[in-house]
Amino acid sequence: MSARSEHDADTRRAAEWVRDSLTTAGLTAEIIDTAGHPIVLGEWHGAPARPTILIYGHYDVQPAEPLELWDSPAFEPTIRDGRIYARGSVDDKGQLFLHVKALEAHLKVRGTLPVNVIVLAEGEEEVGSEHLEQFIRDHADRLKCDAVVISDSAMFAPGQPSILSSLRGMAYFQIDVQGPATDLHSGSYGGAVVNPAMALARILATFHDDEGRIAIPGFYDQVRPFPDAVRAGMRALPFDESHFRDEVGAPALGGEAGHTVLERLWTRPTCEVNGLLSGYTGEGAKTVLPAKAMAKVSCRLVPDQDPQEIERLMKAHVARVAPSGVTVTVNHLHGGRPWRADLEGPLFDAARRALAEAFGREPVIVGEGGSIPVVGDFQNVLGAPVLLVGFGLPGENAHAPNEWLSAENFETGMRAMARLYDEYGRA
Amino acid sequence: MSARSEHDADTRRAAEWVRDSLTTAGLTAEIIDTAGHPIVLGEWHGAPARPTILIYGHYDVQPAEPLELWDSPAFEPTIRDGRIYARGSVDDKGQLFLHVKALEAHLKVRGTLPVNVIVLAEGEEEVGSEHLEQFIRDHADRLKCDAVVISDSAMFAPGQPSILSSLRGMAYFQIDVQGPATDLHSGSYGGAVVNPAMALARILATFHDDEGRIAIPGFYDQVRPFPDAVRAGMRALPFDESHFRDEVGAPALGGEAGHTVLERLWTRPTCEVNGLLSGYTGEGAKTVLPAKAMAKVSCRLVPDQDPQEIERLMKAHVARVAPSGVTVTVNHLHGGRPWRADLEGPLFDAARRALAEAFGREPVIVGEGGSIPVVGDFQNVLGAPVLLVGFGLPGENAHAPNEWLSAENFETGMRAMARLYDEYGRA
Repeated sequence: MSARSEHDADTRRAAEWVRDSLTTAGLTAEIIDTAGHPIVLGEWHGAPARPTILIYGHYDVQPAEPLELWDSPAFEPTIRDGRIYARGSVDDKGQLFLHVKALEAHLKVRGTLPVNVIVLAEGEEEVGSEHLEQFIRDHADRLKCDAVVISDSAMFAPGQPSILSSLRGMAYFQIDVQGPATDLHSGSYGGAVVNPAMALARILATFHDDEGRIAIPGFYDQVRPFPDAVRAGMRALPFDESHFRDEVGAPALGGEAGHTVLERLWTRPTCEVNGLLSGYTGEGAKTVLPAKAMAKVSCRLVPDQDPQEIERLMKAHVARVAPSGVTVTVNHLHGGRPWRADLEGPLFDAARRALAEAFGREPVIVGEGGSIPVVGDFQNVLGAPVLLVGFGLPGENAHAPNEWLSAENFETGMRAMARLYDEYGRA
Repeated sequence: MSARSEHDADTRRAAEWVRDSLTTAGLTAEIIDTAGHPIVLGEWHGAPARPTILIYGHYDVQPAEPLELWDSPAFEPTIRDGRIYARGSVDDKGQLFLHVKALEAHLKVRGTLPVNVIVLAEGEEEVGSEHLEQFIRDHADRLKCDAVVISDSAMFAPGQPSILSSLRGMAYFQIDVQGPATDLHSGSYGGAVVNPAMALARILATFHDDEGRIAIPGFYDQVRPFPDAVRAGMRALPFDESHFRDEVGAPALGGEAGHTVLERLWTRPTCEVNGLLSGYTGEGAKTVLPAKAMAKVSCRLVPDQDPQEIERLMKAHVARVAPSGVTVTVNHLHGGRPWRADLEGPLFDAARRALAEAFGREPVIVGEGGSIPVVGDFQNVLGAPVLLVGFGLPGENAHAPNEWLSAENFETGMRAMARLYDEYGRA
């Protein structure tokens, strides 16, 4: 529970447990302090002629509350119906641990590893990985590797191994509209003064066309289409839209015309309102002409969109459509680049073979609508390709009570990763 | 301070003071309890052959806080620079009192009045006049009259007597947009789920065209144009738009094309956003796809628009433009009819003569963008025309610290009202 300072000692104990597990497995391991929660580094460099894999995971977890909604204690792993229930079972202690155990198996059986290995376990993933990028930069020599492997995601369906091909980036804005100097009486002034909340609504309404396409000029200029093969693979996935709609609980789905639900989530950028605030929001009626209105607006980005360029386009567009009579300010609060795996080369070939072997089924390529900024950091700072291969399952309750990891996936995932090291070492 | 129950005893003392003033003036007077603050009724029926005027005013006031911003005590009337500073000086104790003193002058000098008089002073005007309409209905026989006179408004400019010709009505709505069942992660779901805040913005953006006209079909069907003479008179008023803009503090004014600022405020309906709320509104960035979004929207109405008809049009329009993927609900929270004086007949003729005589200048016809529902109640229940003639001035700080009434207007207003009774009695 990295978010809660009263659990700092627990978080440290988790780091010590990871370090000890790595040592038990046969790696050298140490805890390295940061300005936040410590980083655990495990190393094995016994195969100088072979490539080096960096395995990244995190030992911190989301708070377990509300505890009363757990059917078994959050911090006592309990197996029921083939599931390992515990906070962190899937996100990400369990998935990190299956790598550690795969390494241990190699070392116990053969006394050696088919690749050199660095295990980097951080304790701040759930609170924004604030110190990780600097750590990677500061220790770039020590972290030098040929490939990065991360297991912190889910499979598309039970029994269906999956490789994550992309993450969306982000450009998060706050738009402030200032009209009159103070709130005014909507009777005495209404009709002759531009209403900032209405002005904001009219600005927001220009962000999409009637087909759900983003209508900010230039917005799609940097979008690099996904390869046809990847799109075809996504279209072939057995995805049940009506089940998805039921899960969402909306009367219908929506989005950009001409794309499937999965394409909208994984391969297309968005422009969403995350928050709105203006004037009177309590019960009943108050006849105020508000002085100001605010919207939080964020764009999810796909390769090769750049948050800074999107900021420039957004600001230019808003300036163009803003009505006179109000002052509109756009602030870029937060940005992150999108990421896409190239899905080719020895790392991905090895992963395909390892997963197919362990699960008895060819892996599928999936995307992810969210953002994991550290993936780009690893790739950019270390110059190594990143493989995202996870063993969670839909409905796994990550971040919620009764989080679970499939016991079968834990075992098969462990076998797959042990195989991955072999396949990659042989490449 | 009718809004604060800790001042109920003070409010009652004010009622007693009004009753005693009416008695001193020579009327019979009594306090009549309601479910809220009491109503003071003064009566003089000594001229059976003459018409009856009902003078309405209110003895309750807005809270005086923040007291430290007053330059002299809020409840000790203080004359500085020709202004009577006190809470209620203009709104409405002072304006009610000048009628009482005008009646007293008649009775002291002549021993009689030129008309029969009913003075109705309520104590709940500042909290919505909740019990007044029922009181008027319950006492319709006793309140039977030929004309209603209300002094609770302002003159257009110093030295310029003014008759208020219209009040806008109101239809106040809450629009709720429900999308997914719960807030969602904007990364995992964004792009495939209709965003209710964006849907709300797009709905609101359909309420006006690019010329500032309300684009809800049928919205203007019941609007009865103001007479050309009234519009011409308004256009001839010496109104300084740049001064108004400075007062408002907005970078520019706005509104419906083809109308002056005063026409927009007084003669044209509006559709305003009074409040917006959705999703995350705190500091910084939170990547939520909100489950719902809410807007408060109110329309100011002009004769002969009807709040129920506007509700019907609004609901039909919203149902037509609402996108699929969300459920939109429109609730009509509160409505009130617009009002317009016909400005003809003996009451208005008498008022014009009395004001011209007292102020040495012909009165102008002004409008009011706000709503005073009791005006319609008097007119509808008692069947008598209502004259709105007030003696406040721009900048009078009604509802604010350092509220004032021009001492000259108090005296001249008193003379004008004494004259009005004469003129109307003679009619």
